Amino acid sequence: MPGNTFGNIFKLTTFGESHGEAIGGVIDGCPAGICLDFNRIQQELNRRKPGQSSIVTQRKEADEVRFLSGVFEGKTTGTPIGFIIENTNQKSKDYSHIKEVYRPSHADFTYDKKYGFRDYRGGGRASARETACRVVAGAIAKQVIPEIKITAYTKAIGTVVFEADKHQVDFTEIEKNPVRCPDKKLAQTMEAYIKNIRKQGDTIGGIVHCVIENVPLALGEPVFDKLQAEFAKAMLSINAVKGFAYGSGFEGTKLLGSQHNDIFNEDGTTQTNYSGGIQGGISNGMPIYFDVAFKPVATIMQAQASINTNAEKVEIIGKGRHDPCVVPRAIPIVEAMAALVLVDYYLIRKTQL
Amino acid sequence: MPGNTFGNIFKLTTFGESHGEAIGGVIDGCPAGICLDFNRIQQELNRRKPGQSSIVTQRKEADEVRFLSGVFEGKTTGTPIGFIIENTNQKSKDYSHIKEVYRPSHADFTYDKKYGFRDYRGGGRASARETACRVVAGAIAKQVIPEIKITAYTKAIGTVVFEADKHQVDFTEIEKNPVRCPDKKLAQTMEAYIKNIRKQGDTIGGIVHCVIENVPLALGEPVFDKLQAEFAKAMLSINAVKGFAYGSGFEGTKLLGSQHNDIFNEDGTTQTNYSGGIQGGISNGMPIYFDVAFKPVATIMQAQASINTNAEKVEIIGKGRHDPCVVPRAIPIVEAMAALVLVDYYLIRKTQL
Amino acid sequence: MPGNTFGNIFKLTTFGESHGEAIGGVIDGCPAGICLDFNRIQQELNRRKPGQSSIVTQRKEADEVRFLSGVFEGKTTGTPIGFIIENTNQKSKDYSHIKEVYRPSHADFTYDKKYGFRDYRGGGRASARETACRVVAGAIAKQVIPEIKITAYTKAIGTVVFEADKHQVDFTEIEKNPVRCPDKKLAQTMEAYIKNIRKQGDTIGGIVHCVIENVPLALGEPVFDKLQAEFAKAMLSINAVKGFAYGSGFEGTKLLGSQHNDIFNEDGTTQTNYSGGIQGGISNGMPIYFDVAFKPVATIMQAQASINTNAEKVEIIGKGRHDPCVVPRAIPIVEAMAALVLVDYYLIRKTQL
Amino acid sequence: MPGNTFGNIFKLTTFGESHGEAIGGVIDGCPAGICLDFNRIQQELNRRKPGQSSIVTQRKEADEVRFLSGVFEGKTTGTPIGFIIENTNQKSKDYSHIKEVYRPSHADFTYDKKYGFRDYRGGGRASARETACRVVAGAIAKQVIPEIKITAYTKAIGTVVFEADKHQVDFTEIEKNPVRCPDKKLAQTMEAYIKNIRKQGDTIGGIVHCVIENVPLALGEPVFDKLQAEFAKAMLSINAVKGFAYGSGFEGTKLLGSQHNDIFNEDGTTQTNYSGGIQGGISNGMPIYFDVAFKPVATIMQAQASINTNAEKVEIIGKGRHDPCVVPRAIPIVEAMAALVLVDYYLIRKTQL
Repeated sequence: MPGNTFGNIFKLTTFGESHGEAIGGVIDGCPAGICLDFNRIQQELNRRKPGQSSIVTQRKEADEVRFLSGVFEGKTTGTPIGFIIENTNQKSKDYSHIKEVYRPSHADFTYDKKYGFRDYRGGGRASARETACRVVAGAIAKQVIPEIKITAYTKAIGTVVFEADKHQVDFTEIEKNPVRCPDKKLAQTMEAYIKNIRKQGDTIGGIVHCVIENVPLALGEPVFDKLQAEFAKAMLSINAVKGFAYGSGFEGTKLLGSQHNDIFNEDGTTQTNYSGGIQGGISNGMPIYFDVAFKPVATIMQAQASINTNAEKVEIIGKGRHDPCVVPRAIPIVEAMAALVLVDYYLIRKTQL
Repeated sequence: MPGNTFGNIFKLTTFGESHGEAIGGVIDGCPAGICLDFNRIQQELNRRKPGQSSIVTQRKEADEVRFLSGVFEGKTTGTPIGFIIENTNQKSKDYSHIKEVYRPSHADFTYDKKYGFRDYRGGGRASARETACRVVAGAIAKQVIPEIKITAYTKAIGTVVFEADKHQVDFTEIEKNPVRCPDKKLAQTMEAYIKNIRKQGDTIGGIVHCVIENVPLALGEPVFDKLQAEFAKAMLSINAVKGFAYGSGFEGTKLLGSQHNDIFNEDGTTQTNYSGGIQGGISNGMPIYFDVAFKPVATIMQAQASINTNAEKVEIIGKGRHDPCVVPRAIPIVEAMAALVLVDYYLIRKTQL
Repeated sequence: MPGNTFGNIFKLTTFGESHGEAIGGVIDGCPAGICLDFNRIQQELNRRKPGQSSIVTQRKEADEVRFLSGVFEGKTTGTPIGFIIENTNQKSKDYSHIKEVYRPSHADFTYDKKYGFRDYRGGGRASARETACRVVAGAIAKQVIPEIKITAYTKAIGTVVFEADKHQVDFTEIEKNPVRCPDKKLAQTMEAYIKNIRKQGDTIGGIVHCVIENVPLALGEPVFDKLQAEFAKAMLSINAVKGFAYGSGFEGTKLLGSQHNDIFNEDGTTQTNYSGGIQGGISNGMPIYFDVAFKPVATIMQAQASINTNAEKVEIIGKGRHDPCVVPRAIPIVEAMAALVLVDYYLIRKTQL
Repeated sequence: MPGNTFGNIFKLTTFGESHGEAIGGVIDGCPAGICLDFNRIQQELNRRKPGQSSIVTQRKEADEVRFLSGVFEGKTTGTPIGFIIENTNQKSKDYSHIKEVYRPSHADFTYDKKYGFRDYRGGGRASARETACRVVAGAIAKQVIPEIKITAYTKAIGTVVFEADKHQVDFTEIEKNPVRCPDKKLAQTMEAYIKNIRKQGDTIGGIVHCVIENVPLALGEPVFDKLQAEFAKAMLSINAVKGFAYGSGFEGTKLLGSQHNDIFNEDGTTQTNYSGGIQGGISNGMPIYFDVAFKPVATIMQAQASINTNAEKVEIIGKGRHDPCVVPRAIPIVEAMAALVLVDYYLIRKTQL
């Protein structure tokens, strides 16, 4: 029940504070004999890394993963894969000003109430730095199920929205622009929009869209562990996420059954895909797709009223190096969590065959 | 990993097909010594029951729960609470026409692919009848944490939307109208809207809103089992649910950080509550609120093209007694799942004090 | 963590008190499509049933299992198998004398301390009646892995010990005598021994031996869920069990490494089998064998000093119908638990192939 | 289900091969605010360390634990405690001779069959080096429940047996002699016995006895997670363990019920303690005690016949530095596992109050 493990068969347990010695994790249940492509793991980490472009935080972190076990002569051994990422660029002094202050819409207040005190440096365990470990594990998960193609991209930054019918959908474009939007022009609009907001010392939210192609039939465990339920949990476990919707989502609530039903083709595919690739909690072989909503980053470079640990009013202003918008860096995290969900159900499925 | 258990400390395992002998469940981990109010359990079941109003399915089911263990002289004993609800009104012949047919947007196709064959009568395990067991367990969960107040209501039926700033919010109204909307007049509009759709043999989706008041501080287990993550999973595990959003949700993605941040009062409450009562995955004592999107019911009383188990085209038309809209009956289910999430975190919290 | 679930993939959850309405269970994760032999399930129950011979308790219980779900047209559907066994022969008045008394070496005292009060009738949840549900699940587990042959028998009743080198080993004899010992003559000695002890109103312990043949290679999950570790847990979870030893067991501690090491044959089998079919927590294909120690039944028909719930001294004497020795009826329970361990590891093994 | 996690609330996950970069673990669920005594953690590690005396392996390993997270300013933060122990003294070349050989009664054969290949250096994951991580976690667990006193000692080395009625029981003596036997004289006999066996290039087994005093009432979760069941699993998960018996154990099977029943005193204690401090799977407040049987070490310094990975006969002879008897070094491991069992049930108990 302590909450730092994800998955049942392919099981990731993570640890680490943003300003401790290191963060890391253990993957238990990875099948043996998989030749790991370590470059691809590092590439995924680089997609999440601070400092990768002008619209993300300018912190510099090496984010180099060191594998301690579970890999022998380049292959997984079937035993637990332990890994760590050293924290090399902690500027703890950036945080001394918040030692006794609760920042608005951060986890400072709740961590203090839950644990009695907290590692206040950089958000401690509540820092999004923790997600680097998810990316490592997700990159390995992807290599266990290479046939499944997971693609996330930026669908909206604030009010600037990518609409599939109006904008160009080119998956190869995603990694070519810093916003990770599949429409080149819209990406430029989004980039300018973010820069403008940052100039004001402010931040903005957005939406990540994820498409999963070539999904095997029959993944998902009703009635509680329906495939969409686990995706929802996975996404809502990511820092700053406020919502999840798959298939027709919230818009689908406005449709009639006669509009919404996905009519079968003779081969078992469907003519429409409002179901989002899942029926009754089980994958039906059609693409799975979903939206993930991210709130604006809580740390802003403007003065804000707040309180301290003595329940006194204080004024605070953000220090340090922060993201004006988490969405571009969240793309590989969404993909990683999707991969972790899929690999787990993929392995459990084997027990049923 | 098989998916029919929910919770970790207060653990519900359910079983049963809609047209088998009975459905039922086991609650393991309910604290001892709680005087159960059996009338309230039955009342919750009645809120979910078919035939309760003119806008829901007219199937008649007794839905009477029989407790087999774990209760002695009216009090919980701390041992597992086993219960069953006999299936009394199965009209299996209503389903013989779908024995070899895959209904569009139902789970027929995926269950067949997953298990090799299926109990085709009434959806079998994929039937929403299964949720009656959740309501029983939720009603018990509520009695373990009576201080927490959980209220769900209908926020939207199709395009008819309850807007808190335009419509009257009166929680006492909810159970007075068959739609379960807190605005009496809007409820009438919604009711007429549903009836009209039913006349056309069609169905419609909608949105349930849930508010949880008097939540204890410090519930939630970062980093994967954040409180919102478990709510998301719980809601997405309910039949027909397509989306979940808490606090500012998808709308919040359009806000600036300076607008979205919840400024603290000196007592630790916040002036706004875009956070939805949760920060860093941990309850902060403010009300928790979220939306749950339901798709239109897949069974419609109109002819539809489909395929059969031999991959041949067929035409089908709905038979039996079905809901034109699941939202009114989904209200107690959303509340039950919310209660199951809360009781589990409430109990785990005790291990930390 | 509440303790009424066993297994991870093939997962049994049980409920029920000896004198409540019914006992029962849910099996989640049983593979779909298995044609269940219901007669064999009932036969296993009959081996455990009271009243089956003159050396066991003379209570009469129908012990008929009723399946409520998860089976359709004789085959498992892959959904949870719910089942109940009604309690038909509860003589609750037999227990009114212990309502406020703690029987020596029973669970009365500890249940009261743990739960604040207890269902005192017949031991409630602590009654060995609960094991009937294990036998049902074990009988189904055996049918999932029919190639594995599990045989338990009586190795010792008190000081009367079956020694493989001195006595005749004939597995077909086991079910022919009421003691379930593979040596016909020794079985008669044991039977007379038990009868004599019962005449004195006393009880006696004993040892069950279990042999598992045709075990697939590579079952077991180091480092904590080693195969022997799960067998140990399974056995120690049975009422009255005090010890578990596999392979060379406690005697093996006296051997030198040069004596104890099992030398390999070229085909991977070993010349000796002190390892008991398990090396490094993983099955090696050789037979698995272990001993399980059962204490004497606590209920004796002699006057004993004890205390009541007011901490006052009382004298009690056993009433009702009890076993003078649990060993003969424990045989199918040991086999059932072994089957539950094996089926779980058998299924998890599939995720690794 | 992958087997490298122990516990439910206080949850230890370990990783690492004996000759990889490091071994380590993550403890999730440790309560916040505990001032850790790091010296005591290191002391426990030193009790398990190679090279500590002349009767254990002469390998030199620093066995220094490095904590990476979950501790801030000397106190646990409630977040996961990640730790590693670097492998500093791996002589991998000592193992090149077994790369393609299956050593008798080792896990070489089964690991190869399970995972397809293995890290052959020093036993890889199957090495007892892994238990160092258990000792770290156990040392922390002990500090969470300081009121419970866990004492393990050597009860037997081969045929040399400590008998409580014949030998002197002095707990303070245990750590004063290298065998860890509470009787000084017998310890000398045992030491000489081990040295003599080592001279012959042979090894010997033995028995560890563990006593747990000041156990809180009401720990244990029937019916499957009885306290003794979890102790059994914990002990059988330790390398080389073949048996577990608590309370009267195997000897108790020979007693009559009238002899074996523990008569209550008015204060709820019992006059005898054949029950071993547990009734119905729940602690009764009396001392818990149990025996753990260890087989002789499989690596001997004598020539043995074996096979290689091509199923050909080979002759092997032990190389490297090995223990002639694991018992003295197993003492802190038994204690650590006992502590992990107890802390988990101690925390779960809080959910019931």
